[in-house]
Amino acid sequence: MRQFIVLGHDAPTTADFPLDDIAGGAGRLDVLCRCVNSAFFLSHDIRESVRVHLVLADEFTVTFDGADLRRLNPDERSTAALVRGALDEREEAIGHMPVETSPGVSLTRRGFEPVLEDVASESTVVQLHEDGDPVVDVAPPADPAFVLSDHHDFEPAEADLLADAADHRVRLGPERLHADHAITVAHNYLDTGGFAEY
Amino acid sequence: MRQFIVLGHDAPTTADFPLDDIAGGAGRLDVLCRCVNSAFFLSHDIRESVRVHLVLADEFTVTFDGADLRRLNPDERSTAALVRGALDEREEAIGHMPVETSPGVSLTRRGFEPVLEDVASESTVVQLHEDGDPVVDVAPPADPAFVLSDHHDFEPAEADLLADAADHRVRLGPERLHADHAITVAHNYLDTGGFAEY
Repeated sequence: MRQFIVLGHDAPTTADFPLDDIAGGAGRLDVLCRCVNSAFFLSHDIRESVRVHLVLADEFTVTFDGADLRRLNPDERSTAALVRGALDEREEAIGHMPVETSPGVSLTRRGFEPVLEDVASESTVVQLHEDGDPVVDVAPPADPAFVLSDHHDFEPAEADLLADAADHRVRLGPERLHADHAITVAHNYLDTGGFAEY
Repeated sequence: MRQFIVLGHDAPTTADFPLDDIAGGAGRLDVLCRCVNSAFFLSHDIRESVRVHLVLADEFTVTFDGADLRRLNPDERSTAALVRGALDEREEAIGHMPVETSPGVSLTRRGFEPVLEDVASESTVVQLHEDGDPVVDVAPPADPAFVLSDHHDFEPAEADLLADAADHRVRLGPERLHADHAITVAHNYLDTGGFAEY
């Protein structure tokens, strides 16, 4: 199982945003939608053994589970509609109990810390960092979890939580990438057994 | 200079499509828009030494040139608007003369064959193919050009043209990727000097 946590700092927490303006009025939800695309799509296939957690303004989390996903399409707008559909049920999300809002999509009332704690309990947490070890020097873990941020850097408190939870600190290359591109590169690194064995 | 040619088999050739339905009514223009995103965006930066050619239904080509690009945003909708703006000038695109329709965006009345011929004259053409050599075994060329297809496979005639023009045939990994993800992986391969030297 590969997991990705993506922090949406300006992301909406209510369902009253227009799908025509996800890169503007909806707090750059487009970034998060592209992360979902990168995490799940193969050519004519879905990666089933993947889970993505979109943390919305540290208040709600929408989780996509590849094993159960239906109705996911590659375009940003339709993914944003799934997030909006999840937020439509926000009153049902009580405590940390997930509410399934579409097949394979669920909502919890959780911020970054409890989500990271849950994921870290079953995964090897990999921190992407420009000062990390070159990814080619790190053997790919069996159940990795990557934590990424939207168009903003991590807040200091988030960076501290992540540094505490991280088992590895790696960099994917010499360039700083968008979160969705980092997910694609991370998948390729894992697909090829860490490049070296490929 | 890195170049990417992307074939949009169902892409629009007139400007009368709605931006609300680019994954449907506009012939999967969303796929092409994501390719433009992957080709140009770094975190808080644009790759200037990149050119992308979107071939629309083998009739028109919209070229994005990183050296001159302005007004490119990462979301699909705003990139689709640039393509639509280019097609608004379709009557001005006569012969193979480019018409600049926005800074760094130009339209030509050309299909795949003349575009490939032009690009091949100044680049090392790399064909991505599941039976190709593992990319890690191929030294990254200085001026590579990658040719990709949208959600459809290459037509037999297109595959023949590409095979004739290709200097290398490589595969990026064991999985078949969407075109935009392949662009991201190709960039990473080139950024890291072919992984091995990284």
